[in-house]
Amino acid sequence: METGADLKEEAFTARYPFIADEPDATFPDADHNDLANAIRLLTMDAVEMAGSGHPGMPLGMADVATVLFSRFLKFDPQVPGWPDRDRFVLSAGHGSMLLYSLLYLTGYKDVTIDDLKSFRQLGSRTPGHPEYGTLPGVEATTGPLGQGMASAVGMAIAERMMNARLGDDLVDHFTYVIAGDGCLMEGLSQEAIELAGHLRLSKLIVLFDDNKVSIDGPTRMSTSTDHLARFAACGWWVRAVDGHDPTEIRQAIGEARRTDRPSLIACRTQIGRGAPTMAGGNHVHGTPLGAEEIARARKAMGWETAPFTVPAPVLTAWRDFGRRSGTKREEWDRRYANAGPAQRRLLRRAPPLGDEARDALVSVKLALAKERPEVPTLQSSRKVLDAIMPVMPELMGGAADLAGLTGARALGQKAIKPGKFDGSYVHYGIREHVMAGVMNGISLHGGFVPYGSTFLAFSDYCRAAIRLSAMMGLNVVYVMTHDSIGVGEDGPTHQPIEHLASFRAMPNINVFRPADAVETSEVWQSALEQEGVPSLICLSRQALPTLRTSVSAENMAARGAYLIAGATADRDVTLLASGSEVAIAVEAAGMLEEEGVKAAVVSMPCFELFRQQGPEYRRRVLGTKPKVAIEAAVRDPWDRFLGEDDVFIGLDEFGASGSAEDLYDCYGLTAEAVFAAALRLVR
Amino acid sequence: METGADLKEEAFTARYPFIADEPDATFPDADHNDLANAIRLLTMDAVEMAGSGHPGMPLGMADVATVLFSRFLKFDPQVPGWPDRDRFVLSAGHGSMLLYSLLYLTGYKDVTIDDLKSFRQLGSRTPGHPEYGTLPGVEATTGPLGQGMASAVGMAIAERMMNARLGDDLVDHFTYVIAGDGCLMEGLSQEAIELAGHLRLSKLIVLFDDNKVSIDGPTRMSTSTDHLARFAACGWWVRAVDGHDPTEIRQAIGEARRTDRPSLIACRTQIGRGAPTMAGGNHVHGTPLGAEEIARARKAMGWETAPFTVPAPVLTAWRDFGRRSGTKREEWDRRYANAGPAQRRLLRRAPPLGDEARDALVSVKLALAKERPEVPTLQSSRKVLDAIMPVMPELMGGAADLAGLTGARALGQKAIKPGKFDGSYVHYGIREHVMAGVMNGISLHGGFVPYGSTFLAFSDYCRAAIRLSAMMGLNVVYVMTHDSIGVGEDGPTHQPIEHLASFRAMPNINVFRPADAVETSEVWQSALEQEGVPSLICLSRQALPTLRTSVSAENMAARGAYLIAGATADRDVTLLASGSEVAIAVEAAGMLEEEGVKAAVVSMPCFELFRQQGPEYRRRVLGTKPKVAIEAAVRDPWDRFLGEDDVFIGLDEFGASGSAEDLYDCYGLTAEAVFAAALRLVR
Repeated sequence: METGADLKEEAFTARYPFIADEPDATFPDADHNDLANAIRLLTMDAVEMAGSGHPGMPLGMADVATVLFSRFLKFDPQVPGWPDRDRFVLSAGHGSMLLYSLLYLTGYKDVTIDDLKSFRQLGSRTPGHPEYGTLPGVEATTGPLGQGMASAVGMAIAERMMNARLGDDLVDHFTYVIAGDGCLMEGLSQEAIELAGHLRLSKLIVLFDDNKVSIDGPTRMSTSTDHLARFAACGWWVRAVDGHDPTEIRQAIGEARRTDRPSLIACRTQIGRGAPTMAGGNHVHGTPLGAEEIARARKAMGWETAPFTVPAPVLTAWRDFGRRSGTKREEWDRRYANAGPAQRRLLRRAPPLGDEARDALVSVKLALAKERPEVPTLQSSRKVLDAIMPVMPELMGGAADLAGLTGARALGQKAIKPGKFDGSYVHYGIREHVMAGVMNGISLHGGFVPYGSTFLAFSDYCRAAIRLSAMMGLNVVYVMTHDSIGVGEDGPTHQPIEHLASFRAMPNINVFRPADAVETSEVWQSALEQEGVPSLICLSRQALPTLRTSVSAENMAARGAYLIAGATADRDVTLLASGSEVAIAVEAAGMLEEEGVKAAVVSMPCFELFRQQGPEYRRRVLGTKPKVAIEAAVRDPWDRFLGEDDVFIGLDEFGASGSAEDLYDCYGLTAEAVFAAALRLVR
Repeated sequence: METGADLKEEAFTARYPFIADEPDATFPDADHNDLANAIRLLTMDAVEMAGSGHPGMPLGMADVATVLFSRFLKFDPQVPGWPDRDRFVLSAGHGSMLLYSLLYLTGYKDVTIDDLKSFRQLGSRTPGHPEYGTLPGVEATTGPLGQGMASAVGMAIAERMMNARLGDDLVDHFTYVIAGDGCLMEGLSQEAIELAGHLRLSKLIVLFDDNKVSIDGPTRMSTSTDHLARFAACGWWVRAVDGHDPTEIRQAIGEARRTDRPSLIACRTQIGRGAPTMAGGNHVHGTPLGAEEIARARKAMGWETAPFTVPAPVLTAWRDFGRRSGTKREEWDRRYANAGPAQRRLLRRAPPLGDEARDALVSVKLALAKERPEVPTLQSSRKVLDAIMPVMPELMGGAADLAGLTGARALGQKAIKPGKFDGSYVHYGIREHVMAGVMNGISLHGGFVPYGSTFLAFSDYCRAAIRLSAMMGLNVVYVMTHDSIGVGEDGPTHQPIEHLASFRAMPNINVFRPADAVETSEVWQSALEQEGVPSLICLSRQALPTLRTSVSAENMAARGAYLIAGATADRDVTLLASGSEVAIAVEAAGMLEEEGVKAAVVSMPCFELFRQQGPEYRRRVLGTKPKVAIEAAVRDPWDRFLGEDDVFIGLDEFGASGSAEDLYDCYGLTAEAVFAAALRLVR
């Protein structure tokens, strides 16, 4: 079989004249069917071998995907990381075999037929849903529905922002999404659609698998929405096509690429197309077809091949299509080689934190220690942003309509607007979920480190997307303010009680809760230095005194926990606290000292980093004496550090509406309470 | 001042001929302005006195609210709980003073001017955002945006379902919502809009405060959505009106009441209307106006009253409007008195669990213990539903398109459909968030106990609404299946790891995780018996053996934790587990016994209920010997029960795609591992 590794553009267009720069040329249907059927049969075989999986979508969307990958998508399987490649996001992630088949067929480096054979097996590179990092060509982890839509909007934003900085020569690509009924039913998709429409992301093209079937049956059981009208109401270009007619599909994608708005192409498809008896029903969505049905399908397609075998001419054609953009990529390489170092660094994301940024962080810390502000940590965070934004061109951010309250927008930070993407701030609107999803997409695209901000209590709205940040190990920073009952009068709906616990329980995310202005700059440094871990920085609405007035360049918060005040070696009792409660512990330590009791005060800005310290350091910090812990939140995460006789002072109920001071008194979160508890423990 | 407690309908319509049954009559503008300005001034005064709050919305929507409350809303302030009252939900909950003003003006029982004076103070009945249970007339806790929209859809569904059962004579009312830009930007609202449109909830009327301003500035910074077109695409009747023109507002509401679809009335308003210099800007959204601005406003309105004082004639008029529906309510009372006992019990919700239902639960438990099925607990749960559905007419449920996989639909359970609401099952579509929000609304409406189902991993999508279930203390049941890495091949996106911890950290919600078929029936009983606490029942996808084969009517799971197997008094070690891991612990205990080690096995289906047991019971169950705990999840919540030397076997990372068996082996969740750990502890 000819693999054509050396097939150049001239030879390619001679062989496939309908491709490349002539997207409007007639497409030979017979060829098309073979190409699409290759996806179908690999999917059937892999799901059958795995004994589970979702054949319905890959079979139904095989025609659409074939047109997209063979004719439009700009990608080079030999250089999967090419920064200016088109992005393809499979938002309907359960159809993972569609993607895996395409990666194999188009000849992605290191993607073998054995990968398809080990579909859904532990340790394989082809998990049940696409997971970022397992295979080249998997641009995002998808599966939780709607998340791919949001990520794709983020990629399309990053593309335009990068384009505004580097020009068409280096960045000018499309983002394609395949979304299903489920993606479009999730409210998250509406947030994504509205933001994309508002920003007129014309290089975003959504291919909707409009098969009118979901797991439980026909979608008419639960929806009557006119999706075309809905997208149009949000500023999208829309078109409906027969999802099995390659000509219609081609024409629609061609037009979509030329509009000045994001595009929805509703592809009317039959779920499970190609499964002779099961196509069109909901059972083909998520179960293997069985050997008989597959045999019937093979026969109907006119292929007498063994499982996992694609006829050589078809595979050759697919491999050729995989090399369609090779010349473009080489040309791009030359342009890249001629670009300036600053441009190149911006494009291929620099290490998370450059020297200049680190210096700026240390400088602002030293300045804050000197200035000793008594302000909310969200204001200190704003000062940190002011300091680093000018020296971190990769840093960009936004807020869910609360920038004025959360301090999320740095001095002079320009917002992006429709047609104008040279800014670095996104007005997400009151849409927390898409904010987090877009941050994921921006980070996946590369070139930027995104932060995003809302009240900590509203992290509940975007938790599903934050979980994906953690699962993918993305360098994104969530700036979550109003982090306790210190919120005050807005009451329990706005007061996070269990949120710290809920995120400390989540794998692979660092939850920071700084105690003062100095720690705030330190946790920002930690967040930006970490690789492969998102951060959640929790900040106070109420003013906090500066506790760390004598500081060095050393990042104490990076230790996760450390002795911040009071006695050390010869302590009688240890007081543990985080964030706004550290000042209370420090005050209690002073009261204890007057009683002749030596208290060590431990600030614990990040449990996760503390757990990564050596046992000796942990022992030295925590000590062996009785402990009192205080945090304006639930107890759960603290039990790890507390013995049976130790005391925790916090909340085990929702908060209330009232002044922050009244609330702290009412719930017993006071220096007096810490003092009394400690005294009881030592006497 | 005449309070008119005895004002009968004839006298009322003589005094206000334009009201009641003549909604199309001309409304005297002068009177209207006075009525609306009463809301405005009470709002200004209360926010000023509190020193914080949100005047923008109440001032802007005062005209709309005046028309609604004076002319259309069916309510009786003397009988706030009248089951057939119209429901009014303030989805834009930050505008709470709009609601509080109206409750005072219309003369709600026990709502005094002192309540308004104590706005936002700790212990007052007028918290920053409306909280269910604080004041009569507050139909739902709102504040987290979009939640009121979802709750209102739930109320409108409950109304139609109850109407289908009891007829127009007893149930026939509207649900009105005031929603802001923020509500409509949240993706949750789209899910609510789609479901309401699909079900053609014609008695749902949304009044959109279309002021084009959000906290950070004009909404054009973040949205270009045509809301009228968007709602229309989802099957709504839509209309735009001048939100300060009482005639336009009245005509639109009048028409909306006659359509056969849910209605959106976009009320073009000026935020902060009536604040002479601040109206129209974003700063009036959430800050006190200041004494000077208020003085100017008073002057412009022609009122020289002291703060918190409404001119007597205006208050009299408002109080009269408050008694507008009194006659209707009395007529309804007579119809109710003549209704049958079954109807009456259905309407005024019976105790959560009747004797018949309790008997059915015990029967199915005894049958399951005898049958000893080895099936997923989600299948056992389905059997429980089959048993209780026929004897619990108040029980209704639904799933987010996963009923076939989660066992959420009982045998023969009929789905509700547009125009046909005699069923008890809701096809929510792939919309977890609105499912939870609708469950809240159904429960708030009264008459039903709703359950809803999805995969536990996707609880992240609806966490914000579940939090409100807990905060309001609603009797709703979340049936969350696929509760661990036992999900298998679908991989980490579908495998809950931190979700048990995250909900155990949430106040006022019971998290159940039954170990087998018998415990499944017991936790259902506990969930339905609890009052004022929502439940989250976590169920396995993988088959589990029946461990409890010898049972009585006593509900062991109601204890939260209990000795399920192995040694008791003379134990050497205690094995703790929940759900699918209890069988592993039991197996390990058997292995230990062969080694001469006496192990007690504790099943812990509900941490919250266990913590409510007396200290002696807790001590007896947990014992004093070394412990090994096992749960296919993160460690955090277990630390409360474990000492420093005890062992926890679980996960501290995201799962993977593979068979459930392979995953349990890979993560060391095996009887062998428990056996080895226990042996190390005792030797």
